[in-house]
Amino acid sequence: MIDDLIDILTTSKVSASESELYRHSKDESPHSPVEPNVVCFPETKEDVQKILHYAKDNCIPITPFGVGSNLEGQIIPIAKGISMNTERMNQILDFSPEDMTVTVQPGLTRKQLNETINRQGLQFPIDPGADASIGGMAATNASGTTAVRYGSMRDQILDLEVILTDGTIIHTGSKAKKSSSGYHLTGLFTGSEGTLGIITEITLKLHGIPEHEIAARCTFKDLDQCAEAAYHVLLNDIPIKRMELVDAASIKQVNAFGDYHFPVEHSLFFEFAGSKNTANTEAETTRKLMYDLDCDNWEVAKTEQDKNELWKARHEVSPSFRHQKGKNLLGTDVCVPISKLPSMVSFARKILSESRLQGGILGHVGDGNFHTLILYDDQSNEEFQAVNNINEQLVYKALEVGGTCTGEHGVGIGKRKYQSAEHGNAFSIMKNIKSLLDPEHILNPGKIFTDEVIR
Amino acid sequence: MIDDLIDILTTSKVSASESELYRHSKDESPHSPVEPNVVCFPETKEDVQKILHYAKDNCIPITPFGVGSNLEGQIIPIAKGISMNTERMNQILDFSPEDMTVTVQPGLTRKQLNETINRQGLQFPIDPGADASIGGMAATNASGTTAVRYGSMRDQILDLEVILTDGTIIHTGSKAKKSSSGYHLTGLFTGSEGTLGIITEITLKLHGIPEHEIAARCTFKDLDQCAEAAYHVLLNDIPIKRMELVDAASIKQVNAFGDYHFPVEHSLFFEFAGSKNTANTEAETTRKLMYDLDCDNWEVAKTEQDKNELWKARHEVSPSFRHQKGKNLLGTDVCVPISKLPSMVSFARKILSESRLQGGILGHVGDGNFHTLILYDDQSNEEFQAVNNINEQLVYKALEVGGTCTGEHGVGIGKRKYQSAEHGNAFSIMKNIKSLLDPEHILNPGKIFTDEVIR
Repeated sequence: MIDDLIDILTTSKVSASESELYRHSKDESPHSPVEPNVVCFPETKEDVQKILHYAKDNCIPITPFGVGSNLEGQIIPIAKGISMNTERMNQILDFSPEDMTVTVQPGLTRKQLNETINRQGLQFPIDPGADASIGGMAATNASGTTAVRYGSMRDQILDLEVILTDGTIIHTGSKAKKSSSGYHLTGLFTGSEGTLGIITEITLKLHGIPEHEIAARCTFKDLDQCAEAAYHVLLNDIPIKRMELVDAASIKQVNAFGDYHFPVEHSLFFEFAGSKNTANTEAETTRKLMYDLDCDNWEVAKTEQDKNELWKARHEVSPSFRHQKGKNLLGTDVCVPISKLPSMVSFARKILSESRLQGGILGHVGDGNFHTLILYDDQSNEEFQAVNNINEQLVYKALEVGGTCTGEHGVGIGKRKYQSAEHGNAFSIMKNIKSLLDPEHILNPGKIFTDEVIR
Repeated sequence: MIDDLIDILTTSKVSASESELYRHSKDESPHSPVEPNVVCFPETKEDVQKILHYAKDNCIPITPFGVGSNLEGQIIPIAKGISMNTERMNQILDFSPEDMTVTVQPGLTRKQLNETINRQGLQFPIDPGADASIGGMAATNASGTTAVRYGSMRDQILDLEVILTDGTIIHTGSKAKKSSSGYHLTGLFTGSEGTLGIITEITLKLHGIPEHEIAARCTFKDLDQCAEAAYHVLLNDIPIKRMELVDAASIKQVNAFGDYHFPVEHSLFFEFAGSKNTANTEAETTRKLMYDLDCDNWEVAKTEQDKNELWKARHEVSPSFRHQKGKNLLGTDVCVPISKLPSMVSFARKILSESRLQGGILGHVGDGNFHTLILYDDQSNEEFQAVNNINEQLVYKALEVGGTCTGEHGVGIGKRKYQSAEHGNAFSIMKNIKSLLDPEHILNPGKIFTDEVIR
């Protein structure tokens, strides 16, 4: 396989070195690593076509790889074969400030993208925390702290260029902001985790950088109160940019990790963005609302440094838990109808406490999406079972109240077993679409679907 | 066929009366009417299943019908067979103000929906002008004047219940605001114009009713200036609720039709919505911006009556053209990248003037979507050819600059011939998905696809 691929691509684009095989064996999830047989580094769409052609002819699995920051094992080549790393396809192909759009290759990361476009007063606001590749974010329908305002990747993608297993190049959309033409393939390929085709170009909507941003936080005695308060912000139609729940355990952890001094209480972190006047008005309206709902304190970040510190701390919650020797971290990812959030969060806190495992709760509460971060001993089978049990209880509870098993991390390996329960009869259609577009099942086999033939 | 259906459904749910066949033969487009053989009025999803079962067994086409306000012939049963009218399935099944969601049957109209939910301080803001059925709006991915803020139907639908031709009932999503679980079938079925399955329930996102709304308008000497000005509003990231271009010819027409007294100049109509403070700030920022861009005047609607009149007039532009004896009206519907809008609008004005046909230009300019409304003699083949020629020129120009042949009206009959040019290789995938889900091609045959077998 390796020699063939070197013949096809040249040596510089193929590696089976120990370090590369290792790097492509794992992501940031606790799923077990599996090394590919070989890693390819395509530099052009022709390279991608060649790899697909070879893989299809020889029934060799291909698993696309972005930067490996994903959280459900999507890039783990569980059926071995080829790991296709897109890091050399990292160009901005067409930046059109006047259309507020940009077309990029999949290997470009979101920070690299913003570095270029921010200079023109534009931003790409989807923020999953990690400096993920745009291709990976599209493949998993990523979102994060700004989804309450900007939605998920699917809401921000205008067009995808996708190469199908037979080498055909398609475009799923156009550069127009909306369309009622034909079937919406952009939505279908976004979030399909590399199981339907290889994404080689992504055209994104861009947004103006708001004139003014305000960061603020407040604390509550009870976790429910936090979730309730977040819900009232939505009811009042305040167009917040971010609204994050961070429970007391997470605050404690991140304070220790990063030398912060946040009050160790259940907290909401806010960002308001717009013109100076608008942002101030929204912040003031929210402040009043929070006090009406019995918050204990409200604090606005006074300096640029305070503001950055607040969001830095928020993004460090997960690393602060992860940063413990001999411990592994699992993050749950259910998303529920917003009125169900307070009881879901309480339920999560309850079963986490009962398990006696250490952990915290973090929530993109404007979307009904939250993560229970749970630490466990990586040598203890018992703790591993307990963690999976918590995850499973949360998933079934979320489905019971009309929610989903994954708000933003995707299915990968970890959420496969819930697909049938969540999607019911619709899951057969998904399987049929998979077989239609990838009849040999060479594209990321074993992801999303459990019963897939894996060679 | 009629007797069989009466046996299956009972008499009260089946009609082949002259008036019903006529009512179900045409929509609001200039496409030629075709009467179905029979009209069915299902009242439950079991009725829908029975009709599908019968139609599949006997290879009889089914064309779903909402209220018939569509604009590309989607409900015209060009292959005859059954017209399936959903007007008796018009219930609100689950209104959850606390989740800001509602689940409705397809026959409910958007005004009926808003009547109920407005009482709870919530709104469903998508506004295509006509009081369309929610099912029809979902089927065509409708949008309209508020798309600049709320997007299209696809952006507002959380879940669809769809019955497939074999009677299987599926749900395409959940009640969670976002999800990365499985393939995004909600996006696929939205805008599929009844060609993949019959929509029997729609779960929608709802929005708070803004505290305050401001309507304003301004005029410019040149049509390009209008489009340019609209573009600058977007660049400044002002979250307008509506921003509509109405050209001088349209103003003249609607003034005469509705006894309005708007200055007969190229105009932008605005709506700002939010808290009183926010709406005022946005209006003031926009006012300054418009004067910087050389607008001739800026007028804010002072009373509630003035405000309503402004939007009433905007929605009457199309009827004001239509309201002429012996004349027919065609509305184009291209959508282009926003920087291309000024030149597209100028091009439309130029070819309209050259044709010597009467007409106006209306635009959802925040989305790059505009309509050229063209009047023609319904007895003149020559004028009909000229109108189609204008439509076609606009479509190819739009595709050339990276746009789409239809921003919101859908494909139906009128835009079938451009599907291959717009979607290229992706069009084959659409065809394959169609055949996968409707192997007998009984669902709205002849729509979207030109070369479909029509019995």
